[in-house]
Amino acid sequence: MIALFRLGLLNPNTDERHTDAMRGVALDALPEGSEVTAVTAPRGPKAIESEVDSVVAAAEVIRMLESLPDMDAYVIACFGDPGLDAARELTSAPVVGIGEAAYDAAAFVSKKFAVVTTLPRGVAELEEAVARRGLPSRCVGVVPLHISVSDQGADHPDTTASILAVGQRLVDDGAEALVLACGGMADVAATVQDALGVPVCDGVSFGALLAFSLWRSGLRTSGSGAYANPEPVDYVDMPAPLVSKGR
Amino acid sequence: MIALFRLGLLNPNTDERHTDAMRGVALDALPEGSEVTAVTAPRGPKAIESEVDSVVAAAEVIRMLESLPDMDAYVIACFGDPGLDAARELTSAPVVGIGEAAYDAAAFVSKKFAVVTTLPRGVAELEEAVARRGLPSRCVGVVPLHISVSDQGADHPDTTASILAVGQRLVDDGAEALVLACGGMADVAATVQDALGVPVCDGVSFGALLAFSLWRSGLRTSGSGAYANPEPVDYVDMPAPLVSKGR
Amino acid sequence: MIALFRLGLLNPNTDERHTDAMRGVALDALPEGSEVTAVTAPRGPKAIESEVDSVVAAAEVIRMLESLPDMDAYVIACFGDPGLDAARELTSAPVVGIGEAAYDAAAFVSKKFAVVTTLPRGVAELEEAVARRGLPSRCVGVVPLHISVSDQGADHPDTTASILAVGQRLVDDGAEALVLACGGMADVAATVQDALGVPVCDGVSFGALLAFSLWRSGLRTSGSGAYANPEPVDYVDMPAPLVSKGR
Amino acid sequence: MIALFRLGLLNPNTDERHTDAMRGVALDALPEGSEVTAVTAPRGPKAIESEVDSVVAAAEVIRMLESLPDMDAYVIACFGDPGLDAARELTSAPVVGIGEAAYDAAAFVSKKFAVVTTLPRGVAELEEAVARRGLPSRCVGVVPLHISVSDQGADHPDTTASILAVGQRLVDDGAEALVLACGGMADVAATVQDALGVPVCDGVSFGALLAFSLWRSGLRTSGSGAYANPEPVDYVDMPAPLVSKGR
Amino acid sequence: MIALFRLGLLNPNTDERHTDAMRGVALDALPEGSEVTAVTAPRGPKAIESEVDSVVAAAEVIRMLESLPDMDAYVIACFGDPGLDAARELTSAPVVGIGEAAYDAAAFVSKKFAVVTTLPRGVAELEEAVARRGLPSRCVGVVPLHISVSDQGADHPDTTASILAVGQRLVDDGAEALVLACGGMADVAATVQDALGVPVCDGVSFGALLAFSLWRSGLRTSGSGAYANPEPVDYVDMPAPLVSKGR
Amino acid sequence: MIALFRLGLLNPNTDERHTDAMRGVALDALPEGSEVTAVTAPRGPKAIESEVDSVVAAAEVIRMLESLPDMDAYVIACFGDPGLDAARELTSAPVVGIGEAAYDAAAFVSKKFAVVTTLPRGVAELEEAVARRGLPSRCVGVVPLHISVSDQGADHPDTTASILAVGQRLVDDGAEALVLACGGMADVAATVQDALGVPVCDGVSFGALLAFSLWRSGLRTSGSGAYANPEPVDYVDMPAPLVSKGR
Repeated sequence: MIALFRLGLLNPNTDERHTDAMRGVALDALPEGSEVTAVTAPRGPKAIESEVDSVVAAAEVIRMLESLPDMDAYVIACFGDPGLDAARELTSAPVVGIGEAAYDAAAFVSKKFAVVTTLPRGVAELEEAVARRGLPSRCVGVVPLHISVSDQGADHPDTTASILAVGQRLVDDGAEALVLACGGMADVAATVQDALGVPVCDGVSFGALLAFSLWRSGLRTSGSGAYANPEPVDYVDMPAPLVSKGR
Repeated sequence: MIALFRLGLLNPNTDERHTDAMRGVALDALPEGSEVTAVTAPRGPKAIESEVDSVVAAAEVIRMLESLPDMDAYVIACFGDPGLDAARELTSAPVVGIGEAAYDAAAFVSKKFAVVTTLPRGVAELEEAVARRGLPSRCVGVVPLHISVSDQGADHPDTTASILAVGQRLVDDGAEALVLACGGMADVAATVQDALGVPVCDGVSFGALLAFSLWRSGLRTSGSGAYANPEPVDYVDMPAPLVSKGR
Repeated sequence: MIALFRLGLLNPNTDERHTDAMRGVALDALPEGSEVTAVTAPRGPKAIESEVDSVVAAAEVIRMLESLPDMDAYVIACFGDPGLDAARELTSAPVVGIGEAAYDAAAFVSKKFAVVTTLPRGVAELEEAVARRGLPSRCVGVVPLHISVSDQGADHPDTTASILAVGQRLVDDGAEALVLACGGMADVAATVQDALGVPVCDGVSFGALLAFSLWRSGLRTSGSGAYANPEPVDYVDMPAPLVSKGR
Repeated sequence: MIALFRLGLLNPNTDERHTDAMRGVALDALPEGSEVTAVTAPRGPKAIESEVDSVVAAAEVIRMLESLPDMDAYVIACFGDPGLDAARELTSAPVVGIGEAAYDAAAFVSKKFAVVTTLPRGVAELEEAVARRGLPSRCVGVVPLHISVSDQGADHPDTTASILAVGQRLVDDGAEALVLACGGMADVAATVQDALGVPVCDGVSFGALLAFSLWRSGLRTSGSGAYANPEPVDYVDMPAPLVSKGR
Repeated sequence: MIALFRLGLLNPNTDERHTDAMRGVALDALPEGSEVTAVTAPRGPKAIESEVDSVVAAAEVIRMLESLPDMDAYVIACFGDPGLDAARELTSAPVVGIGEAAYDAAAFVSKKFAVVTTLPRGVAELEEAVARRGLPSRCVGVVPLHISVSDQGADHPDTTASILAVGQRLVDDGAEALVLACGGMADVAATVQDALGVPVCDGVSFGALLAFSLWRSGLRTSGSGAYANPEPVDYVDMPAPLVSKGR
Repeated sequence: MIALFRLGLLNPNTDERHTDAMRGVALDALPEGSEVTAVTAPRGPKAIESEVDSVVAAAEVIRMLESLPDMDAYVIACFGDPGLDAARELTSAPVVGIGEAAYDAAAFVSKKFAVVTTLPRGVAELEEAVARRGLPSRCVGVVPLHISVSDQGADHPDTTASILAVGQRLVDDGAEALVLACGGMADVAATVQDALGVPVCDGVSFGALLAFSLWRSGLRTSGSGAYANPEPVDYVDMPAPLVSKGR
């Protein structure tokens, strides 16, 4: 029996437990009969906290996509959406980033949303991502928890408490929805939503459904212009990218 | 047996054949087990071509929503998205407009898209809608066919030919995807996509899937701030709005 | 003896006392020999506090304009400017909204202004209105009193005190002028201006004068493009709009 | 008998015939009983065609304002609005520039307007002025006639013909109103309006009426923040500015 | 022996000690063999604190540039960059303003910077300057010391302490670099940088180096379009501008 | 004898001849006594034509920077500025991209500039880069030659002719300066500048001088916020980034 829909989920960091958790979230969200094949980055950072980590991870995304051809659609499962535009050059299947998916969701269920992140260093980058998505006037703020992804494993209860405290302050300041851009916390979204009474947007489930929705509408990544096949450039000491788009 | 997902499709114009066609498109797109209940505006314009038509239709959308409570999500099935913010005040179910859905789809499968509309009078309004969605730098142009919705019924073949001609010109000028904002033309999207080789975005199918995706992700329209329940204001000579959101 | 200038003042809510008060303000402001004919919405909300109220009121504005043809210019006398673009399709006389008028006034007498409104729910909508008017970088903030229009009747003294307190804080934060977007408070503008020492912008008087100024300069609403006559679309169960513009 | 309203009209260039013509236009536009006192720059360029001319003229505007105290409001009668912010520091009377007035008028009677200017060198500056006024998305273009102000005197008929030709092209491209930013051409506005059938905005008459409208609404230039009195700085070899605002 | 590079430094205010100090800073920054010829405004304000001061100073800049032809590049050494565009019409040598230079520097060494200024009246103008430079999303705030330039001479220690206090607060709020837009304070930049541990941008040294860099790259101010030679307009009672650009 | 200034030039592609040519340009531009150490990417694409190429190259930039510590400043010598923000996390020396340098130069010598690139696929990315730099209103267009970098080697004369033809058209359309974003063409800038009579901006020489200017002004990349040291994250199957910034 063939699957209704085959999603490729690419985790740009090297943390397999994280991959498994996100695969579960995606599978729960998708319609019955869907399949999710998840790939973990074979090398690179265990968590993506800096721009250096993100650049390294973006290069891995290309190779992960090559290793997982023939999916109906793909999700890049890291909030910074590393390698997103590059991936769109390599396949005509729709490719969705969980960061853009989460902002998008927030914009459908609220006029004004806020973003909760891990560290102050990420604030400017996330503000830029919201602006690239065209939503700067919709975002009342990007606020850090001052807890890194790495530190969250050890003291998870404190992280949730911290998100609740920051979230409550943002709701009081006018946030009508929250986006959690803070790593492995997709599982706490429901808790926060219940406690604060505003929608809390999870990029993984909505991102997987967006990928499904694009594919199901018959839409494929454009092969014209910005997302055209890479030019046939010579590569030194590494293979040139494998294009599954049909040149 | 209960439905997986119940979508309320609100057609703000009074053309029932249009309602039926859009209901069919939505039903085809949604996962098996979904139900689509479609409502046609009981009064007002047969096609929405001016801002006057749009204002009249927006007021009908409120009453249509009241007449169709308890859906899991709603789609407002007119490209101008009339009454969208008002509808979001009246229900906690997600509400999606097919205009915003189509721009959104285009932004996921291309860097640069173009919009094809019916008449020059609508160009500025659509440009504003694209800007409100945050995508002005992604849109290479909004171009009219110079054919009204009313005139399309009679000479449908010419309309398709006209869309193909305008679309080809836009692709040559850098459009990597097209959005058809020209009324009853959802059925020609596939034809145009095949002929021009770029994605052609249909707000009805993707809009229905977006509504499903939001609902399936557990997201509900925020009840805080801009989309809070309407205040309990006295209404003269007409019933005050019925809120299904739980005050 | 014929009037110098005949202004049609359309009050989109159903509160006749409000209509009378605004008519008095407009008449006082206009040059001697002007006439002001004021119309109250025949049905709908007594105060416009939500987007639902606004959508209902916008549809009434069209009918009110039809009932009052042949004015030299019109003012839509509600801060949200409901039905403004639609009204401009129906008449070649200039049409001015008091919201846009107030922002405009503030921009001529200050570099940075602030907007005082009634409820938090209206903040996002007013921010959008300021942005549509092109003045987001000129506005230091939209701040709510947390008092609805309906509640203002009972305890008017408290409302003024509240405006003074909010206004003083905004002036301390850099507001060089204030816009009062809080319903029936046009009469308190002078009090606030005297107390705080900054211009306080009243959309009704300046809006009436703007309408006069456009007319007096020989300007008429364009009949080309966005504000062209509505297309001749069939209307079901209600009359099609009456156009006084000359088709 | 005292005047209803006393307008100070400041012509930043040194062409007295131009001053007289603009004084006549303003007087015709203002309500009966108004007085217009017009001042011509005592020195500097005869026409303002470059940024150098504009900078020289701006410094003269300060001195002209000092020489004409006690007006109810002022108009700076040059399309580039030289010295506008400086003038607002020196008087609490409203000060309006004819450039900003013309863009403002166009935004009230059309969705999309275009600007006709003299020389290509002025295009970028006018685009910046439209953007400062917050209207870049409303402007379909700034198009030069390739005729300098100085050359217009000799061959006036050709200038009008050129404006008509450029204007027709702009209307065909979607301009619903025109702004004439081309010097001594206020007198041709009516001709162009009749010929092209779209509103043609004249900054002098509408600017004079705006100044009247602000004053009549009881608004005065803010004395707080950006337009506060100049600081009491020592001036070398020239008198420090005379402030009529009450320090 | 001829100089490697000849910089003209134009101080728009009349404070010669300020000129000397800035000349020293520029000379220290430039490569060995460079010459800096500095000119003080012969008349006008001793410090530029208001828009009136700025307009007067801009007109002097034109005359100062005429008095100092044949430099390889110029710096306008006042944070408001008065007369910058006019100067670019008069010479093909590159002309740099120290305000734009300082924002530019901050944008190269940080994602988010803040600007410290003297008085609240200048905040809006500096915000506009940052926006004109295209960097509004990079600037976390423009904050005044509430100390005028004139008052700084007397109590310099207090000024530095005030800058340190304001700067520390801005760093705590996310500023990664500071721009000192507060007059004669270039000499305190190093102190502040050492104390706060973030880059502190000095427009004079970086502006002089930018002017050198443009010249050294073979770039000259464009003679086409906005910066073309002024048109040959008649001047009354003062000499027409002297163009060294080659007409 | 120690160098005045040591520049690290990182060529993100693997074409050594290109590295040598750019090293020569930088050395010629910098003040006497400067040293330029140039590094070629050890692996990856020979030319960077797609986003895939760019992502691969960005990851190499990090390793190249690690291999070349202790420079006074760095230039990333590829128009897309790959890895720029990541590099700024790794060193406190200033880091400049030649893309941002070229736009910056154009903004100092013209009001309106245009960008010439190789292929249509790059247009959207370059438009985004211009927007990130804050200069979208200054750019009249990004226009492709329809010649890839790879094809330029063979028929160089044709490339120059093509640039001249495209450039002339852009100048006719209002471009006052040109930016050449078309790979190995830095050497043709002078030819184009002479032929077209407008400044032609070369990112390599101006970028090297900008890096020098920042360093010479005592500015170092901020270690606070966005450009703080990368967090100490575990790396799998590759070394974690080497930080020369002092943690």
